[in-house]
Amino acid sequence: MSETARPRLGVAMVGYSFMGRAHSQAWRVAPRFFDLPMAPDMAVLVGRSADAANAAAEQLGWGGVETDWRRAIERDDVDLVDICTPGDTHAEIAQAALAAGKHVLVEKPMANSVAEAEAMVQAARQARAGGVRSMVGFTYRRVPAIQLARQLVEEGRIGEVRQVRAQYLQDWLADAEAPLSWRLDKDKAGSGALGDIGAHIVDLTQFITGQTFAGVSGMLETFVKERPVAESFSGLHGTAGTERGPVTVDDAALITARLSSGAPAILEATRYAWGRKNAMRIEISGTTGSLAFDFEDMNQLHLYDAADEPRTAGFRRILVTEPDHPYIEGWWPPGHGLGYEHGFVHQVVDLVGALAAGEDPAPSFEDGLHVQRVLDAVEKSSAEQSVYTEVPAPAGGGPAAH
Amino acid sequence: MSETARPRLGVAMVGYSFMGRAHSQAWRVAPRFFDLPMAPDMAVLVGRSADAANAAAEQLGWGGVETDWRRAIERDDVDLVDICTPGDTHAEIAQAALAAGKHVLVEKPMANSVAEAEAMVQAARQARAGGVRSMVGFTYRRVPAIQLARQLVEEGRIGEVRQVRAQYLQDWLADAEAPLSWRLDKDKAGSGALGDIGAHIVDLTQFITGQTFAGVSGMLETFVKERPVAESFSGLHGTAGTERGPVTVDDAALITARLSSGAPAILEATRYAWGRKNAMRIEISGTTGSLAFDFEDMNQLHLYDAADEPRTAGFRRILVTEPDHPYIEGWWPPGHGLGYEHGFVHQVVDLVGALAAGEDPAPSFEDGLHVQRVLDAVEKSSAEQSVYTEVPAPAGGGPAAH
Amino acid sequence: MSETARPRLGVAMVGYSFMGRAHSQAWRVAPRFFDLPMAPDMAVLVGRSADAANAAAEQLGWGGVETDWRRAIERDDVDLVDICTPGDTHAEIAQAALAAGKHVLVEKPMANSVAEAEAMVQAARQARAGGVRSMVGFTYRRVPAIQLARQLVEEGRIGEVRQVRAQYLQDWLADAEAPLSWRLDKDKAGSGALGDIGAHIVDLTQFITGQTFAGVSGMLETFVKERPVAESFSGLHGTAGTERGPVTVDDAALITARLSSGAPAILEATRYAWGRKNAMRIEISGTTGSLAFDFEDMNQLHLYDAADEPRTAGFRRILVTEPDHPYIEGWWPPGHGLGYEHGFVHQVVDLVGALAAGEDPAPSFEDGLHVQRVLDAVEKSSAEQSVYTEVPAPAGGGPAAH
Amino acid sequence: MSETARPRLGVAMVGYSFMGRAHSQAWRVAPRFFDLPMAPDMAVLVGRSADAANAAAEQLGWGGVETDWRRAIERDDVDLVDICTPGDTHAEIAQAALAAGKHVLVEKPMANSVAEAEAMVQAARQARAGGVRSMVGFTYRRVPAIQLARQLVEEGRIGEVRQVRAQYLQDWLADAEAPLSWRLDKDKAGSGALGDIGAHIVDLTQFITGQTFAGVSGMLETFVKERPVAESFSGLHGTAGTERGPVTVDDAALITARLSSGAPAILEATRYAWGRKNAMRIEISGTTGSLAFDFEDMNQLHLYDAADEPRTAGFRRILVTEPDHPYIEGWWPPGHGLGYEHGFVHQVVDLVGALAAGEDPAPSFEDGLHVQRVLDAVEKSSAEQSVYTEVPAPAGGGPAAH
Repeated sequence: MSETARPRLGVAMVGYSFMGRAHSQAWRVAPRFFDLPMAPDMAVLVGRSADAANAAAEQLGWGGVETDWRRAIERDDVDLVDICTPGDTHAEIAQAALAAGKHVLVEKPMANSVAEAEAMVQAARQARAGGVRSMVGFTYRRVPAIQLARQLVEEGRIGEVRQVRAQYLQDWLADAEAPLSWRLDKDKAGSGALGDIGAHIVDLTQFITGQTFAGVSGMLETFVKERPVAESFSGLHGTAGTERGPVTVDDAALITARLSSGAPAILEATRYAWGRKNAMRIEISGTTGSLAFDFEDMNQLHLYDAADEPRTAGFRRILVTEPDHPYIEGWWPPGHGLGYEHGFVHQVVDLVGALAAGEDPAPSFEDGLHVQRVLDAVEKSSAEQSVYTEVPAPAGGGPAAH
Repeated sequence: MSETARPRLGVAMVGYSFMGRAHSQAWRVAPRFFDLPMAPDMAVLVGRSADAANAAAEQLGWGGVETDWRRAIERDDVDLVDICTPGDTHAEIAQAALAAGKHVLVEKPMANSVAEAEAMVQAARQARAGGVRSMVGFTYRRVPAIQLARQLVEEGRIGEVRQVRAQYLQDWLADAEAPLSWRLDKDKAGSGALGDIGAHIVDLTQFITGQTFAGVSGMLETFVKERPVAESFSGLHGTAGTERGPVTVDDAALITARLSSGAPAILEATRYAWGRKNAMRIEISGTTGSLAFDFEDMNQLHLYDAADEPRTAGFRRILVTEPDHPYIEGWWPPGHGLGYEHGFVHQVVDLVGALAAGEDPAPSFEDGLHVQRVLDAVEKSSAEQSVYTEVPAPAGGGPAAH
Repeated sequence: MSETARPRLGVAMVGYSFMGRAHSQAWRVAPRFFDLPMAPDMAVLVGRSADAANAAAEQLGWGGVETDWRRAIERDDVDLVDICTPGDTHAEIAQAALAAGKHVLVEKPMANSVAEAEAMVQAARQARAGGVRSMVGFTYRRVPAIQLARQLVEEGRIGEVRQVRAQYLQDWLADAEAPLSWRLDKDKAGSGALGDIGAHIVDLTQFITGQTFAGVSGMLETFVKERPVAESFSGLHGTAGTERGPVTVDDAALITARLSSGAPAILEATRYAWGRKNAMRIEISGTTGSLAFDFEDMNQLHLYDAADEPRTAGFRRILVTEPDHPYIEGWWPPGHGLGYEHGFVHQVVDLVGALAAGEDPAPSFEDGLHVQRVLDAVEKSSAEQSVYTEVPAPAGGGPAAH
Repeated sequence: MSETARPRLGVAMVGYSFMGRAHSQAWRVAPRFFDLPMAPDMAVLVGRSADAANAAAEQLGWGGVETDWRRAIERDDVDLVDICTPGDTHAEIAQAALAAGKHVLVEKPMANSVAEAEAMVQAARQARAGGVRSMVGFTYRRVPAIQLARQLVEEGRIGEVRQVRAQYLQDWLADAEAPLSWRLDKDKAGSGALGDIGAHIVDLTQFITGQTFAGVSGMLETFVKERPVAESFSGLHGTAGTERGPVTVDDAALITARLSSGAPAILEATRYAWGRKNAMRIEISGTTGSLAFDFEDMNQLHLYDAADEPRTAGFRRILVTEPDHPYIEGWWPPGHGLGYEHGFVHQVVDLVGALAAGEDPAPSFEDGLHVQRVLDAVEKSSAEQSVYTEVPAPAGGGPAAH
């Protein structure tokens, strides 16, 4: 398809720190490796400080700048709003953008409360009628090994799902003197490890198994109640000052659960596991095999096939870098692995593909709402002595297939 | 020490299948590699069928046979009774043996109920006054890597314990047509994955951290409710017949918990994890480092030391086969790993050492009782919608140090 | 630095298949993540077919197209020529570009013969006098873990280098029916596994140790002498036709060697190791420690420090994704790994940095020539019954530091 | 079979240090786990010092002691002589024992020179005519994973063997101040890393592939020419004194080679690879798959099967602990791994099985001689600038199958 034949897709991105940098790379790179049916135009970056926003736009390659997101969503050259701000602003921006007829991509977690998420779903449903699409940014779904896991479960390669075990282990707060950031402030972040990283393994469990969570028992813990206030920010941390402030979110979340089929699941999210830098792990035990993944080795998927001859059965370390693997044909030869940001590139590929086809991209706001309800049930259960707490069933049943 | 100078220790072993074979190897081998202060004499093997017991005694190298354990504990040439039968017989034999003035080593789980375990503790206390010792066979404590983990925690190498995550994953029941055995019969086995393998990770958590469990939330599941009845036994399984019978124990146990310090822990035991053959794993996150172990790589311990220079910090794969490591001096040069049964050999070394020194070996019956109480609380919590359930504190505080 | 203040660097890229796509990504992405002192302008892509070159330029984002590289090197808007063609054309293009006063980046292997490489060095020396720079594209040097290895050796962390063992294992030719491509044609490719992948481990050995190869014993082998001719090309292979043609290069190269210090080294390169997709591995044993790397786990470096306390010594699995690690500050938080093409981005960062500073980038053409001489000596030794064959010492001594 | 029905096999063991302890364990344990057709009797231990030999016999469980091996081989209660002394004594003892009609098991390397090994083969041939058997103790063949590798190659599971890469890496001499021992004395040990550990990977390559080495190119190196003399011995090292003495053997051996089919192989043996404790590794690349093994994970074999569907192909980590795996039925349930000394137990099982069946056990003295010739050719090649040096073909063709 020649460039001129491709419809333009004008993008406004709100926020430009960690997530904004990743999303920018995705918009920039996707058309270079994949034959997209639309031509994304990085039209406008939104930031409250004009100077900082201009510098970011120049650095990241955006065509213009707005200091008020309301202005951005009114612009005619903007077709899609990509929301990369902290969670407390997601609901308002997303609803306004959808009302203005703009497609929306919102970073996870979708919102800071179930009520906000419900309002967003309402807005998404109304917009959908007019052909306006919405999507939540659970990018880990786009890691090729995760997509392959989903394919194999769908094809019945491991039989019925019997059990799920998942962990998301990081260590960037294990140092009790690491400074406070917005991620430790309940008002900004909604929750701590639970919503920041626990949300990912909740979503992946649902995505890979094709089921939803039916109920949970939760136990939350805050190890370090007070930390030095950050004076300036960079990376995840910022630099510690002399003042101290309270941590108002959880540091670790332990969960046992039931999926919609009744299958038990066990999940842990923590930012205090020294030595585990980004160990997002999931293992599915089925009736005829198992799958295992660890993001610290993100180009690998491990498969145990119980149908293999007993002498030569064993977990297969699959390097998910073959042309037959999801997304790989766009990239490099076998064994030339991908990195973290490639998931964001694939997210753009899938999103643009859905928009051009007039289809709803996944995960939908409904999917995001259900994740929010799971997180909410974990908090409730934790407050009530870990008693098993049901999660309201999603309206449409399970999560949409990819 | 010359052989003649060593006091004889006459041993009677009750039961001679899987555990009996492992214990026999331990009694046989320990004096050949370690300078024991007493000389074990494999005096008598006890089995109900005279023919089978005689064959086993000849095969395993026991000097004589009794078909009634009551006879064995009365024999003057027996100083210690080693109980390797299913759990439903432990309490009766142990109490009688202690009453007869014989030291007792009992396989885990110590008993099938808290009440039985309490009675055994009572008997052990009375016997202790007369210098008669008792011990529970949590042999995984004797894996050199686990001993090293305990040492490092005790020395403060990873700081205060913040979190524990443990798994015991097997797959020998993942095939729904694998036959029933006594291990799936609640009357014989007490419980399923919970007591058989969950008990090990409960004990190891307590052993390595030096803490006890204070409370738990549990979720138990039986995946396969009915199985073919075994016609003959061999290995873990036996051969399936045409009749079918009910499974009366749990297949998987999911646990979230608090240790005595308040530290959260998360545990899973299952016999349905295809591809995991004996994956007994434990990871401790402390304030200054982490430790990780997997029995499938039993000669390794992984240590992350947060004090290492940031550029060169990383989990260290320690091959626990150096002369400085626990028990290793008795064995081979570095890198020449040990196997499963060596833990049993070390158990004999430690037990005989304690007996000769007139000290109580560990784990004591009190330790075993507390494990039993944890298992009991898990079952209660599971029956009450996973509500957090306290475990009564042990009388003497934490577990005895090794 | 504002964009306007940055001097422009006009780039012409010759060739646009596998390497061209990787180089394009590097020129595109480097300025977005790193604060480059010059602003690269992807000015012109060169390809013989106008149609194909235009399509590639549009896809990859180049501003214009030339069908004759001679035209490209004459253009005023071109400051640097990036040569991504097969090896038989490197010498001519590089010499002409340097003569025209253009900086040159040439893909490895630098040339198909020592004579060509010598001529290129001659050209580079003359150009250098006029401030015109040249560099060979051994991008694996820019993998953060490899840079860290180099740092640690330089700092003496593993003491004196005693031994090197390196492997480059792939399997894309293990299928005897995989079609012929230019990589199997001696006229185009110069050699087979030896020059294509063996060259990388020769270069890395020299780069990490800071030494050069002094002599080699080689054994070359061609397993499959004839293959189907490819009818069309895509990826590494293309599609097989019915005609068959001869393989004129080596399939595997086995090498024992001496470094300039006398330290022995052993190397293997093969494209027939089923299951090894891109296993470029290097392990350095020093007098006080060891380093190990495998490109299939490219975000990890393994360090054994013999100074660690014996009980807790072990290979450290360093996730080279910390802010203190080379290049990482430009990217993502810890544990969010990089992929294959990031090495090319770092190559642009280092090259542009050197150009702006008026310094010679590394690896120089002299470095590339010495690699060529090593490959040549391997071929000679292989032809003479593997007899140890000296490699002429480089004029200036060892390889330039990074 | 009842004990009384089993013919007795009287064993005399010469030497009782590292290897003697391992052999004793094997004679002791084999009949307890395997249904042997003969009943080994640990009749007599031979050592030059009566006191030390008596202490060793008591510790290790031998029935009697001789201080002169000549006396031992004359005893009527001795049917088999098990030679565990340093290599310089093997030839004399083995020839005398065979001449006296005793079966012989001799530790590897079989001899310190080709001439000695040839004389031993001569003696073995004469003895064989009289039903007297001989065997070389390459016990690593008896690791279950190695046996499985052999089975799979024999069955054609990886097709034709294309390449072999093997390493035997240790680090116990990496410390330049580790004291001298007999293993560093050419007169006692014959050679250094080459004969001590290189011999193992030479044997395993031949065993697994079913081929012999046809020629080699070798490079030997001695890193540390002088070391402190040990004052007393224990473990591998002993304690350093103040005197210094020369190292007269190689420290590392690098080898490229051709097997009888012409397949290239590359091997390295070193005792200077910091962090590698007993990394005996072998990888076989065939036309349809690959096998990989590392003794540091001795219960695992890795198999890549190129016939697997491309999406799910990957190295399978086979835990070689299943009932279907070689030797395992005698031991424990899946995942309950074996250790170093189990190979010696299996050696006894196989040896006794062959004796009872009236068959020649493997590896034969002819097999041992060929290994010796390979080592000899490596030394010659190393002395002649690594020129490719043919190894005389064995009389009978390839190595005997297991």
